[in-house]
Amino acid sequence: MTSPLIGTRQSSNAPGQIMRSQGEVMGRKFMFLDFGTENACERTSFMFLRQELPVRLANIMKEINLLPDNLLKMPSVMLVQSWYMQSLEEILQFKNKGADEKVIYDFTDAVIKIRNRHNDVIPTMAEGVVEYKEAHGMDPVTSQNVQYFLDRFFMSRISIRMLLNQHTLLFGGKVPANPAHPKQIGSIDPNCKVTEVVKDAYQNARKLCDLYYKNSPELKLEELNAKEPGTPIMVVYVPSHLYHMAFELIKNAMRATMEFCRDNECPEVHVHITLGNEDLTVKVSDRGGGVPLRKIDRLFTYTYSTAPRPRMETSWGTPLAGFGYGLPISRLYARYFQGDLKLYSMEGYGTDAVIYIRALSTESIERLPVYNKSAWRHYRTIHEADDWSVPSKEPRDAATFRGS
Amino acid sequence: MTSPLIGTRQSSNAPGQIMRSQGEVMGRKFMFLDFGTENACERTSFMFLRQELPVRLANIMKEINLLPDNLLKMPSVMLVQSWYMQSLEEILQFKNKGADEKVIYDFTDAVIKIRNRHNDVIPTMAEGVVEYKEAHGMDPVTSQNVQYFLDRFFMSRISIRMLLNQHTLLFGGKVPANPAHPKQIGSIDPNCKVTEVVKDAYQNARKLCDLYYKNSPELKLEELNAKEPGTPIMVVYVPSHLYHMAFELIKNAMRATMEFCRDNECPEVHVHITLGNEDLTVKVSDRGGGVPLRKIDRLFTYTYSTAPRPRMETSWGTPLAGFGYGLPISRLYARYFQGDLKLYSMEGYGTDAVIYIRALSTESIERLPVYNKSAWRHYRTIHEADDWSVPSKEPRDAATFRGS
Repeated sequence: MTSPLIGTRQSSNAPGQIMRSQGEVMGRKFMFLDFGTENACERTSFMFLRQELPVRLANIMKEINLLPDNLLKMPSVMLVQSWYMQSLEEILQFKNKGADEKVIYDFTDAVIKIRNRHNDVIPTMAEGVVEYKEAHGMDPVTSQNVQYFLDRFFMSRISIRMLLNQHTLLFGGKVPANPAHPKQIGSIDPNCKVTEVVKDAYQNARKLCDLYYKNSPELKLEELNAKEPGTPIMVVYVPSHLYHMAFELIKNAMRATMEFCRDNECPEVHVHITLGNEDLTVKVSDRGGGVPLRKIDRLFTYTYSTAPRPRMETSWGTPLAGFGYGLPISRLYARYFQGDLKLYSMEGYGTDAVIYIRALSTESIERLPVYNKSAWRHYRTIHEADDWSVPSKEPRDAATFRGS
Repeated sequence: MTSPLIGTRQSSNAPGQIMRSQGEVMGRKFMFLDFGTENACERTSFMFLRQELPVRLANIMKEINLLPDNLLKMPSVMLVQSWYMQSLEEILQFKNKGADEKVIYDFTDAVIKIRNRHNDVIPTMAEGVVEYKEAHGMDPVTSQNVQYFLDRFFMSRISIRMLLNQHTLLFGGKVPANPAHPKQIGSIDPNCKVTEVVKDAYQNARKLCDLYYKNSPELKLEELNAKEPGTPIMVVYVPSHLYHMAFELIKNAMRATMEFCRDNECPEVHVHITLGNEDLTVKVSDRGGGVPLRKIDRLFTYTYSTAPRPRMETSWGTPLAGFGYGLPISRLYARYFQGDLKLYSMEGYGTDAVIYIRALSTESIERLPVYNKSAWRHYRTIHEADDWSVPSKEPRDAATFRGS
């Protein structure tokens, strides 16, 4: 079965697809399918990217401009914007050029330059949010706006980098596409061995944990291939994305475990991998004391994560390293190919974190933000009255009313 | 510590609270607090109910009228509406009467009559939805509307029945408040023994399961009192609500298990109860093969549940008995006192279902639908374009494009 990630080219479709790709998602998808092919040629990739990259860059730049003025004025946000503007210009310079070898060669160089320019977009935007909070504080409406925007902005970035990486890995060097993994097609592994990636993530998370705590939990790994019992679990996927998610969840599980059991014998981190007909699920369970339901959403909130205090309230999700966007970004990686990432905790006991990935590569289709009127409205809607009763935030005050 | 469920009366507050109770949530809450008290007097309860019941009935009746005309025309929906109108009238008759013994006595009779009249509201509304689907089919917008409405309508009903039951149990008979459970205050148990309720639910679910399958999974029960280690897990709660939720989840877990393992040795259903500082969690885990992520939301969707086919797609959530509203109603019971109910599945393996309840009774405050402009808008909003790209629903069609 053909996969949208590694399908075979159909040059007959290409022109129509390129036409469609203007802001039209299906077109993008088909080109994306064609894109990662074994026999893809640099020219086709060039033709597609010089069309598609400006579309994705321009769309998300329009949304940046919908952010609150005070946020747009923050130095770090302006810096990020300048990167996008410059990259857009550089790509547009190829718009009306021919497609001779020299042009295509220069284009590949430009792609590499752009990819490197955008390396630090995430920490820089995180910095921008901190700058804003320090200058203006953070109200619920702005926080909601920032959450909506950053989820879309970072998802757009994931998709753009996917395109840039594919082009760079396939055509960037005279060396084989991906020397580390010769069987991969660019960053895509048609036979991604999930268990290997998870073990790898555990080993590296463990190193980090040992550095901080001089100790680390053991790994208890269980796998069930319900689709093809007895055979190793494999999916068509981007191993670096899976690694990023697994590392984040295992690292959090380890930290919670170490903080909770302190000097006592610390319980193992349990990873359960299941391949079904539709879903591949990777469940990471710890006995690190859990997180109250009230605080679960905060772990995915950008405006919380960047603030030091609330992150300290619970050890789960607190970055061992980094700036605290690990969880929301991991969830975006999962959602990028129509999967998801969910946390559920039993306060006092521990936390389960589950990565959902589509088992069928035909379902692994890019999920992209669409800039339309509905999106525009999200930035414009003022905070409405709640249509459910909200309990008073201070039980103690209420208690005095209750005469206790 | 005083609880909003069983607090002691403060007659000094009463009048102000009664004023506030007109559509004003805090007032309601405080009266509700005062309501379940040991030394509550029938007169106070009468004064509160003749004020509060019309408010809750009238508010939700306004929302019924916002439903699509074709749905309002369905016989079952009209029947339910007639019940609400009649009950509202009957209560309003006490508005300007005095508060002498005879009036209060008649009022208590009226309360009992109303409670019985509304016994079958849920299956009747379910029938109304079926009538609508058979007559007009079901489009996404209507389905969304129905979901929004029924969640609020049934929540309102839970809260109204809570008030009616308290009054009836406390003042309805010459017998002690609740003969079955003398220590309870009406339907509220200040020392609800969670494990006992869960065991009870398991035993009854097992009877039902044995009837259908001539066999049933064993129970593996684990409990952890992280708050007061070593002591039994107790909360201030309504045991009948907890029982309803636990029975529903265990019944679903059993069915999934039996359908999945067929004649083979069937794995036990695992119930894990944890009491933390903030949350009481009851986790029901089965190895019944799980549900794909794509189908999880359907299990809570009223317009799906009433249709036979989709329910058959997966055994989890399929009613052993009943009309298929078990899960969404159970979630409402959990949310009624600021808790929640969530499902997490690993397709190919099994499902975890978790009930979250507030461990602190001071946090167990009624969650009620508020009829305001925000609510009104929900019924008016037309279906908007998606602000995220949606993958084509038929991968096969797409595949042909992909030339596979």
